[in-house]
Amino acid sequence: MADQGTYVEQGKAFDRDMNYVPDRITRDARRPEHGPVEGELWPVEPGRYRLVAAKACPWANRSIIVRSLLGLEDVISLGLPGPTHDARSWTFDLDPGGRDPVLGIERLQEAYLKRFPDYPRGITVPAVVEESTGLLVTNDFPWITHDLFHEWREFHRADAPDLWPVDLREEMEDVMKRVFTEVNNGVYRCGFAGSQEAYDAAYERLFTALDWLEERLGTRRYLMGAAITEADVRLFTTLARFDPVYHGHFKCNRQKLTEMPNLWGYARDLFQTPGFGDTIDFEQIKQHYYVVHRDINPSGIVPAGPDPAVWLEPHGRG
Amino acid sequence: MADQGTYVEQGKAFDRDMNYVPDRITRDARRPEHGPVEGELWPVEPGRYRLVAAKACPWANRSIIVRSLLGLEDVISLGLPGPTHDARSWTFDLDPGGRDPVLGIERLQEAYLKRFPDYPRGITVPAVVEESTGLLVTNDFPWITHDLFHEWREFHRADAPDLWPVDLREEMEDVMKRVFTEVNNGVYRCGFAGSQEAYDAAYERLFTALDWLEERLGTRRYLMGAAITEADVRLFTTLARFDPVYHGHFKCNRQKLTEMPNLWGYARDLFQTPGFGDTIDFEQIKQHYYVVHRDINPSGIVPAGPDPAVWLEPHGRG
Repeated sequence: MADQGTYVEQGKAFDRDMNYVPDRITRDARRPEHGPVEGELWPVEPGRYRLVAAKACPWANRSIIVRSLLGLEDVISLGLPGPTHDARSWTFDLDPGGRDPVLGIERLQEAYLKRFPDYPRGITVPAVVEESTGLLVTNDFPWITHDLFHEWREFHRADAPDLWPVDLREEMEDVMKRVFTEVNNGVYRCGFAGSQEAYDAAYERLFTALDWLEERLGTRRYLMGAAITEADVRLFTTLARFDPVYHGHFKCNRQKLTEMPNLWGYARDLFQTPGFGDTIDFEQIKQHYYVVHRDINPSGIVPAGPDPAVWLEPHGRG
Repeated sequence: MADQGTYVEQGKAFDRDMNYVPDRITRDARRPEHGPVEGELWPVEPGRYRLVAAKACPWANRSIIVRSLLGLEDVISLGLPGPTHDARSWTFDLDPGGRDPVLGIERLQEAYLKRFPDYPRGITVPAVVEESTGLLVTNDFPWITHDLFHEWREFHRADAPDLWPVDLREEMEDVMKRVFTEVNNGVYRCGFAGSQEAYDAAYERLFTALDWLEERLGTRRYLMGAAITEADVRLFTTLARFDPVYHGHFKCNRQKLTEMPNLWGYARDLFQTPGFGDTIDFEQIKQHYYVVHRDINPSGIVPAGPDPAVWLEPHGRG
């Protein structure tokens, strides 16, 4: 997503704008198996789309992990904006000449404005862009990863994990909803609280949810049982950022992740699984939050710690 | 000390003003056993002086601990300013009517200006004030605790610890100097760094010193050996603030104190010793740093964690 602007409004609680471009990419552009059709439908087609997903951003990180787990690297290309950005949002400043080598643009904003010249909302990642036209297709992050699984099945690698097991779908939706509102978004609610009262309430909510997860992971290797699902991807990207960013920058400091034994073992277990840890760039993650959020960190100075080597220690699970 | 003003100067490293009112209180107002005489000499006299020392401030905390360890509570009274303050520094906002009950003043500044009407520097704690006249005597913190030991000996309680063992004096001065420049002041150098380069250098210096201490405390119960000395008092007040404040607020985040086993056991050992932990008020400590330093924490929101209950866990030393 994009983190420009002032989140800390005096006296207010943080509220995430959840309006996204609701287009979906589906097999033969037919009605999708699941979920709403509130925008246009685009057909699944190898080589047609580019996923633009900054490694710094937890919401974008999900899509990078799912693309990798499903073996879609040769089917959907990946553009990687740099970790920091200005008020006009994500740029391709890490690429040669500061332009995405496929789309030829300097700012992700260009793909948004090409599709919607008066686009009024934030320029966010992940975003899917049509390579040939440079048009934004969708930035609706929960449906992007959902559809990578359900709609692109024929292009998955042979041993791709079943990220959405049918028999667990209902329970999984409940777990993912709670993880989203209480944890993924919960850390932002702490960091962008506009009053002591809003912060205190956010902190309580966050750690209540982490206590629930700590207990749940005492009897299950992964969130839904013995196998990795989309629910794990969604929790993992927040856990990976917890100690380097959320603990200090967002004041989520009851404990470090490393002090919650089941969550910490679980997070390392995932980190050491191909498709997870290899998508994590702790330097980009820290740069993003500490440089972009000047209203929280006016100096823009990026902390040197903690040492990421602990992520490679044996996890003792499984 | 006082933390008003802007410490973060763009591109600069933090530099502490070490000019204090150099008066000393000595036995019969004679030349002191140790140290310079650069100001006036005042005589030791029970009931004559008031120590003004905010619980929030690490430099003031030293003097509260030493007064307690030596049993000087009935000889030197204690005034306690509140944890937060404005540009005119420490106030007695916790006292009835917002006035110190002995000195009758609202602001510590009044005692400074009564002595020096044009006093040009920061209004700092600890400060010693003459009760009858309300005049500032000294705010020279290293000598305040030194002289509580050396000059007030006849009023110490019978079993007072030998905080300055003569045979260790030389080594102790070296240790205390390194603790002061690298740790006590080192955390401020991280937090108030005006550039990434200044911060990075400060972080290296701090953790190099903490590694040295971690190793030293692997073979000694206390810094100088088997008994508590002034060197332990000076290190302790920084360690007590490490996880609640310095780790996040000052970006000293390679590890928490709780992740450095010898230092953490040592800190709990001291905390559980009468005169140490009973002078620590974690809420006042957090209020002070997070509310006063708006240039680092613009929202003024105070983090809820970490849980101080860990300080009472068995320390396993001794």
